[in-house]
Amino acid sequence: MFGQNENEILPLATAVAGRDLDRDDLEEVFARAAWSGIAEPGDGTAGAVVARLGAATALRAVLGPWPVSEFSARLREAGADDVSDDQVHAALERWAPRAGAPDAVGALRQAARVGARLLLPTDALWPVGIDDLGSHAPLALWVRGTDDALIALPRAMALVGARAATGYGEHITMEASAGLVDRGYAIVSGAAYGIDGMAHRAALASNGHTVAFLAGGVDRFYPSGHDALLTRIAETGAVISELPCGQAPTKWRFLQRNRLIAAASIATVVLEAGWRSGSLNTAAHATTLGRPLGAVPGPVTSAASAGCHRLIRDYTAVCVTNPDEMAALAPLAPAPSALDRAESEDTGPDGRGAELTRLLDALSVRSPRVVSDVAARAGMSLAAVRALLGSLELDGAVAERERGWVKTPAGR
Amino acid sequence: MFGQNENEILPLATAVAGRDLDRDDLEEVFARAAWSGIAEPGDGTAGAVVARLGAATALRAVLGPWPVSEFSARLREAGADDVSDDQVHAALERWAPRAGAPDAVGALRQAARVGARLLLPTDALWPVGIDDLGSHAPLALWVRGTDDALIALPRAMALVGARAATGYGEHITMEASAGLVDRGYAIVSGAAYGIDGMAHRAALASNGHTVAFLAGGVDRFYPSGHDALLTRIAETGAVISELPCGQAPTKWRFLQRNRLIAAASIATVVLEAGWRSGSLNTAAHATTLGRPLGAVPGPVTSAASAGCHRLIRDYTAVCVTNPDEMAALAPLAPAPSALDRAESEDTGPDGRGAELTRLLDALSVRSPRVVSDVAARAGMSLAAVRALLGSLELDGAVAERERGWVKTPAGR
Repeated sequence: MFGQNENEILPLATAVAGRDLDRDDLEEVFARAAWSGIAEPGDGTAGAVVARLGAATALRAVLGPWPVSEFSARLREAGADDVSDDQVHAALERWAPRAGAPDAVGALRQAARVGARLLLPTDALWPVGIDDLGSHAPLALWVRGTDDALIALPRAMALVGARAATGYGEHITMEASAGLVDRGYAIVSGAAYGIDGMAHRAALASNGHTVAFLAGGVDRFYPSGHDALLTRIAETGAVISELPCGQAPTKWRFLQRNRLIAAASIATVVLEAGWRSGSLNTAAHATTLGRPLGAVPGPVTSAASAGCHRLIRDYTAVCVTNPDEMAALAPLAPAPSALDRAESEDTGPDGRGAELTRLLDALSVRSPRVVSDVAARAGMSLAAVRALLGSLELDGAVAERERGWVKTPAGR
Repeated sequence: MFGQNENEILPLATAVAGRDLDRDDLEEVFARAAWSGIAEPGDGTAGAVVARLGAATALRAVLGPWPVSEFSARLREAGADDVSDDQVHAALERWAPRAGAPDAVGALRQAARVGARLLLPTDALWPVGIDDLGSHAPLALWVRGTDDALIALPRAMALVGARAATGYGEHITMEASAGLVDRGYAIVSGAAYGIDGMAHRAALASNGHTVAFLAGGVDRFYPSGHDALLTRIAETGAVISELPCGQAPTKWRFLQRNRLIAAASIATVVLEAGWRSGSLNTAAHATTLGRPLGAVPGPVTSAASAGCHRLIRDYTAVCVTNPDEMAALAPLAPAPSALDRAESEDTGPDGRGAELTRLLDALSVRSPRVVSDVAARAGMSLAAVRALLGSLELDGAVAERERGWVKTPAGR
């Protein structure tokens, strides 16, 4: 499976996964990384095959390549009666040209170089909303950014709109983004010029969490004019793509990227959009996923608002005119305390409650401890420790000091 | 019933009714004229009492005054089990002070002086939509204007909005009114400053039919700054009130006037309205009556559009951005030919079909005849002849020449 680069792969995969990997983990990480470059975003056959056979076995099948008949037989054995022989045949033909191990190794090398990491659906930080995409969900996500931003995604509102924004559109986007951050929301968008860029900028200016989903690899920011903005987002928020490093954005990938924006957020608001704006595609994804959809009206004399009016008139978007009305689309429950959650959740040895207990056991009230020390004491991955520390910090149960983390009296 | 002015009343009533009156007609016209000054607009008890006893008997009861017990007994006899003794008692107390004959005579005198006429619910030109108000319908309507405008009411769209309109609001109102006239609609509004005034002006400029409903008598136009505008509307369109001449507009009467705007139109569109604009009251009446309601969005930064957004967001108003979308609220059927209607309607001696036949019999293809001549030949009222001629002219069945009306080959 690993080709000629086997020795290089373990350290690379460990780096991008952010945790120690046993042989199975390594195969899973490598296979998911490879699949993210083999299947185009939204390839439902890839989603079904990987779900049935596992990423590693499915990759071996493509690399083999297994004969169609054997592939189909194995799929049926695994209970996949929704994938026909014809689909397998067609899929193998489109996957084969991209299935060489070198591509995956190159993507891992580049990811390690730019500090990107690979999230798998089993990771604690995997955005839960994404799973609503079913077999069209990405097989992995490449991320440059902070754990805090990923943890904030279940409280994220997508603010999207046209690249050709007017002064009016930029103004209301700034108000919306800052107002939603003030109300506890994170802001998701697509980092495009116009409305998207303003949504990210205003969130950053309000010290909010903001997450950009890209249509190409996270190693080369697109659009290039937003390189500085995306660098800032990666520092305090997160920049995410389902495509591996080195991949260029295409028309198809933009449309598929839009489904991630809609799925990762609890609601989508379109702030300004022409009659055929791409943001209407994001709106359609939100509606398909059953996510609340809002649109901001504007002057009927402005072509840049025609798409918003169309959404309100014909596609049941709610007319929203200020951050309060946007927040009402998907009200936030008072942030549940991580401690409360621990009590109400599985407290078995693998449950989140157990991890919380072990994490708090691993912390001291007096002696600050660095994350790697805490992870070793708790027997948990660095990523899981970081995620839970972020969550507990919001609850005031832990605090970060100059030389590491401590638990507060509330965390005892 | 007529008090000391009996001799003056017949010629006055004949003039405002626009037709010859026998004794019963005269009593009905006089009683309705009196009632329009006795009961405040929307007085449901007055509506119920007049519907049960007839306007003349009900007026005698008030003038009597009959004892409450007798009044109630007569109402029950007439099948009115929806009016309690308490309601009759309270109603007699509020009606009595206004029930003197001199008030009604004064209103008739003033109406005759300004050329206003009195429409009764039985008149051919009575706006049919008004009847949907049930017992809250006006008992009579005072009109200054043309038959054509009254005939056009079943094709009328109400365009309403704030007095404090912005340049944006006035612009979109002008486009809406002119665009709807181009599509065959008449325009109803309330003649107020701002949106209402612009709706009327643009309709006049497009040679459309426009009708203004006032909250006071049609003898003194309100607001006074719109005296010239209302004079123009009365010349080519119609100015209508349920209050007799001499009555001043009041807050209550404005609110009740709004129900007439909503009821007389096939749909209502709010073009610009603040959060508490009176036009939201018209919108509420439209919704209560089951009439389609539209609202035009605007910049969310404009307080003058906040009421429109509220209607779209909370009151199921349709978001409409141009005349096509407004027209879609209540599409016009292709104008039915009066001749087609005649064929499908009652052709007995009292039916509309019979009147059409008599009217066409009374016209010549070659010799133009004036309306009074046609009325005499057909044995019909002047008003009925005018109404039918207007309708037939739209169908191309009759035409007006310099010296009167002729029928065309289509009308033979």
